[in-house]
Amino acid sequence: MVTKCQVSLDPAVCEMYEKARRLGVETAWDRYQAMLPQCGFGETGLCCRHCLQGPCRIDPFGNGPKRGICGVDADVMVARGLDRAIAAGSSGHSGHARHLAHTLKKAIAGVAPDYRIKDRAKLHAVAKRMGIPTENRSDEEIALDIANAALADFGERETPSLWASRVLPEVRQKRLAEQHLLPHGIDYEIADIMHRTHYGADADPVNLLTAGLRCAMGDLAGCYMGTDLSDILFGTPRPVATEANLGVLKADAVNVAVHGHNPVLSEVIVAMAREMEQEARAAGATGINVVGICCTGNEVMMRHGIPAATHSVSQEMALITGAVDVVVVDYQCIMPSIVNVAECMGTTVVTTQEITKIPGAVHVPFREETATEDARKILRLAIENFTRRQGRPVDIPNHKYPVVAGFSVEAIVRALSKLNPEDPLQPLIDQIAAGNIRGVCLFAGCNNIKVPQDQNFIAIARRLLKENVLVVSTGCGAGALMRHGFMDPAKVDEFCGDGLKSVLYAIGEANGLGGPLPPTLHLGSCVDNSRAVALAAAVAEKLGVDMDKLPVVASAAEAMAEKAVAIGAWAVTLGLPTHVGVTMPVTGGPLVTKVLTEKVREITGGYFIVETDPEAAAKKLLAAIDERRAALGLSVPGGVRA
Amino acid sequence: MVTKCQVSLDPAVCEMYEKARRLGVETAWDRYQAMLPQCGFGETGLCCRHCLQGPCRIDPFGNGPKRGICGVDADVMVARGLDRAIAAGSSGHSGHARHLAHTLKKAIAGVAPDYRIKDRAKLHAVAKRMGIPTENRSDEEIALDIANAALADFGERETPSLWASRVLPEVRQKRLAEQHLLPHGIDYEIADIMHRTHYGADADPVNLLTAGLRCAMGDLAGCYMGTDLSDILFGTPRPVATEANLGVLKADAVNVAVHGHNPVLSEVIVAMAREMEQEARAAGATGINVVGICCTGNEVMMRHGIPAATHSVSQEMALITGAVDVVVVDYQCIMPSIVNVAECMGTTVVTTQEITKIPGAVHVPFREETATEDARKILRLAIENFTRRQGRPVDIPNHKYPVVAGFSVEAIVRALSKLNPEDPLQPLIDQIAAGNIRGVCLFAGCNNIKVPQDQNFIAIARRLLKENVLVVSTGCGAGALMRHGFMDPAKVDEFCGDGLKSVLYAIGEANGLGGPLPPTLHLGSCVDNSRAVALAAAVAEKLGVDMDKLPVVASAAEAMAEKAVAIGAWAVTLGLPTHVGVTMPVTGGPLVTKVLTEKVREITGGYFIVETDPEAAAKKLLAAIDERRAALGLSVPGGVRA
Repeated sequence: MVTKCQVSLDPAVCEMYEKARRLGVETAWDRYQAMLPQCGFGETGLCCRHCLQGPCRIDPFGNGPKRGICGVDADVMVARGLDRAIAAGSSGHSGHARHLAHTLKKAIAGVAPDYRIKDRAKLHAVAKRMGIPTENRSDEEIALDIANAALADFGERETPSLWASRVLPEVRQKRLAEQHLLPHGIDYEIADIMHRTHYGADADPVNLLTAGLRCAMGDLAGCYMGTDLSDILFGTPRPVATEANLGVLKADAVNVAVHGHNPVLSEVIVAMAREMEQEARAAGATGINVVGICCTGNEVMMRHGIPAATHSVSQEMALITGAVDVVVVDYQCIMPSIVNVAECMGTTVVTTQEITKIPGAVHVPFREETATEDARKILRLAIENFTRRQGRPVDIPNHKYPVVAGFSVEAIVRALSKLNPEDPLQPLIDQIAAGNIRGVCLFAGCNNIKVPQDQNFIAIARRLLKENVLVVSTGCGAGALMRHGFMDPAKVDEFCGDGLKSVLYAIGEANGLGGPLPPTLHLGSCVDNSRAVALAAAVAEKLGVDMDKLPVVASAAEAMAEKAVAIGAWAVTLGLPTHVGVTMPVTGGPLVTKVLTEKVREITGGYFIVETDPEAAAKKLLAAIDERRAALGLSVPGGVRA
Repeated sequence: MVTKCQVSLDPAVCEMYEKARRLGVETAWDRYQAMLPQCGFGETGLCCRHCLQGPCRIDPFGNGPKRGICGVDADVMVARGLDRAIAAGSSGHSGHARHLAHTLKKAIAGVAPDYRIKDRAKLHAVAKRMGIPTENRSDEEIALDIANAALADFGERETPSLWASRVLPEVRQKRLAEQHLLPHGIDYEIADIMHRTHYGADADPVNLLTAGLRCAMGDLAGCYMGTDLSDILFGTPRPVATEANLGVLKADAVNVAVHGHNPVLSEVIVAMAREMEQEARAAGATGINVVGICCTGNEVMMRHGIPAATHSVSQEMALITGAVDVVVVDYQCIMPSIVNVAECMGTTVVTTQEITKIPGAVHVPFREETATEDARKILRLAIENFTRRQGRPVDIPNHKYPVVAGFSVEAIVRALSKLNPEDPLQPLIDQIAAGNIRGVCLFAGCNNIKVPQDQNFIAIARRLLKENVLVVSTGCGAGALMRHGFMDPAKVDEFCGDGLKSVLYAIGEANGLGGPLPPTLHLGSCVDNSRAVALAAAVAEKLGVDMDKLPVVASAAEAMAEKAVAIGAWAVTLGLPTHVGVTMPVTGGPLVTKVLTEKVREITGGYFIVETDPEAAAKKLLAAIDERRAALGLSVPGGVRA
């Protein structure tokens, strides 16, 4: 069944890749081939363009320049580059969160009638966590305080940003505060990074890395805030059955792909698509089929069961089917090339946000105040395009997998509460202690064109599941897993070790599912890495230990975006052994590499594991889990210490 | 008298450069040579490392890759790079300003006893401009409002940042607001740039450039705020006679070089150096000789007549003399290599700020709360070092020029008021109208190692002065001019055309100076480019025209830092024809280049003139001046339209 090709493990992608080649439509893989060999200075981080005297490069082999013109050495150069990547990533996640905070404020003010407080329980939970009073207050009053507190987390603050501190166990907050690793304003820390990486400022690599980790904690604040506010506005996800891969497209429907990250737009698209079904039918379609790409896809999948078409590096492939009538994008991770592919394939690309315009796309400025109207306009473009498409053949790969998605922490706790209503986390802890769950691994991040798509995710997940590691996942990492059956409950027997299998079955049965939970749990989009933090923090608090004691690891097996760099940096700051499956542009700095992979452990308990071989990566992740199990006095199953 | 060498037009620098070569001490010029040829992709801006799939490069000749892996084209790539440079520059200037705002708050709170409100007149002037009430209020109350308003300019705001809007004529504020070119929070705009330049966000080069200019206006806010708060805390500069170039070092004194940008530290060093004279004498020195490097040097020069040792690219040369006992740095433009040179030459480098550490330097954490004590500690290090140096030969080049510095706008207006007490700006306008002043050119920015030091500044200034252009200058541009006699009143006859000469003499005589003003006016440090804005805005308001109508131009003839990129971008946004004398890494983007050098003019009235040949640059600047004169109905002197 599986078509093998060079670029992806996903057979649907392979089919479309071959089609693109036949048609002569340029794709990211073509551009990657044209780019080879890539510049080794940049790959190792040994290139600097932070002033107009450059570009400077340092020869990693010691035969060429050893310092930049200003005198920076290799470690300073790579640390500054890493810091700027973290700052950029943080700006993305937090920009997303800020957008939600403004939307919430508009909803409360009544100027954005399509938005409302949908999840009172979450509202109250967030208020409680953030120290916002709730008694005798209306939801609107509470929500306004939350939105204002969120916005106040951006500018410079005397105290740490709430969403980077109050979300952690006290012991971790204290430890990070002592190490100056708590951000005092998200925007503030971003500006601080840009300042200290300016020509002639910070030239101490360790100092630079400390600032980078602090800024990354601002990224955590952005992620966590993004999750909180999305849940309040759109509801906290519950398990939902759906499907993933290009096979979810329908030849006879108006296919609308929502792409990007923020649910503010896509929620309304989903709602309006239902309302406009008749209009689509009148145009000869069977209806409107909204599908997701990347994290916007994750957002609407987990709240509405919208199927996922594809993710990350294969986004162009959705258009190659010829079946997508409109791809509507918000921001981040949108390849500008989709406009070119769209032109070849008859798709209309609609941009909606001021910060993400693409020449060649139709720009429909999306405003929360006129959300319904804007969504309607976009869907009409899709219906119009469908009428033009009718009669033309499309190529929808016959590949898709069932998916059970939407495992918010609240949903996980609810499921566990069927095992122990008084103390829902206890069964999880018991299973970890018993070794049925050897540990937990969070799969996060993107696809990266340097890796055959999904290869690392699949290989590592296969190994870890067999070794009874509970796998949770977000973003395009989740996308990779769902397109290969890892969120299909029917695959538990195939993928999971006996211990894990017993746990997944037990929870499933206690919840009346008539079967197990899926092999891996979908936590949501990339901001929803916060959900993994929430779960780990809850377990740590219950156990009375710091987060770096837990047998919890993370893997950005095919990391690509600067956001992923920021996430990785805060995962390390929170104490997690954090695998990155591609080369990070820091390898040119021996001290920086040593700090990130070893020394930082003395400070945060976490560290980076850079390993491009997935089998070796799985072994290292298992070893990290087992080391922590041993330190907690737990059995190390089978003695399989890698 | 002038020693010619390849690297600099400054004979003092040449002597030290030769000495460094003899000693085998590596300097920036050696590292530059080792770096050649520099990467052409980076030089043209056609290199991108904004994600882990890169580095990507685009072939400007069309033979290699035409797009990045994600599909960005050349224009998007260079626009994103330019935007990040602007964001970094803005973070520097505004970080400097924020530091002053905090210092002012500490001074008011009484926790930083070494700081106080020194300039009441400026305090009230700033309060008036910013709409802060002054009547029946103490200076402390007013100052607290100013400091808080300053800090409120950083985070996201509903209204434009005050220091980027209220400092401009209303007509310009309105125009920029209509074009979305007023920043709504300095840090906010920086974060916005980082977000929109993230992988898969903004792919519209014009949209990216608009955001870049808006962020650059945040840089203006930082600069203007920096000037305002420095003046309030340390006094508004008045003309002061001093000297510049390495000849200001004294073999028999404790030589302390203050280097970097912010007066918060250096003001206290200057004060304490006076107090500790006896201690220095007891150690066998004739005293403590504080000298300046870069903009910290400008700050203490214009307020205390502290001589300038050198600037920018030649900072290492100060240490090569062997006469500098301590170089104490704050932040920005400090080559980390000075630590290596210092080690060879027996100098101690003292870092003082958390954001600028350099391994190998002594770090004395400078806090405003303990300023005197910290300064004393640093000066003791210098005295100790002097005792070690005693008896060792030093090489102090016998080169220095008299300098009259410190022309704040207030000082200029005061000088002009001797000609017309009721309407001090009228004489300036009359002289412009009469053609004795053909126009005004602001020289700003850095040295750049790609240009023989000072070559562009000197060549352009010589030509413009002969053509009766009033030259004002800041930062290391001012440094270049002062080290070559351009701030020596005795040089007016040699440098200036007859019209300009008559004006400089008239003002000098009316002020009882017994001679002319210097050929070029020193406005201050690089944040003091704000003073040029203040002057231009005042003239524009008086004439009732927008700023882009004035015969005022700017030149960053040897631009280097990202701060200079930000300054250039806001100069263009304010409507100035703005010369850059080095290649900017945007030339790989034809559309971006066209927008920045032509199209932007339709929006702001300003535009970039990129011209590496100084003679050609002078002609273009004169042509820009004459074009504006003609548009105002003023004579174009001699018909010399270039």
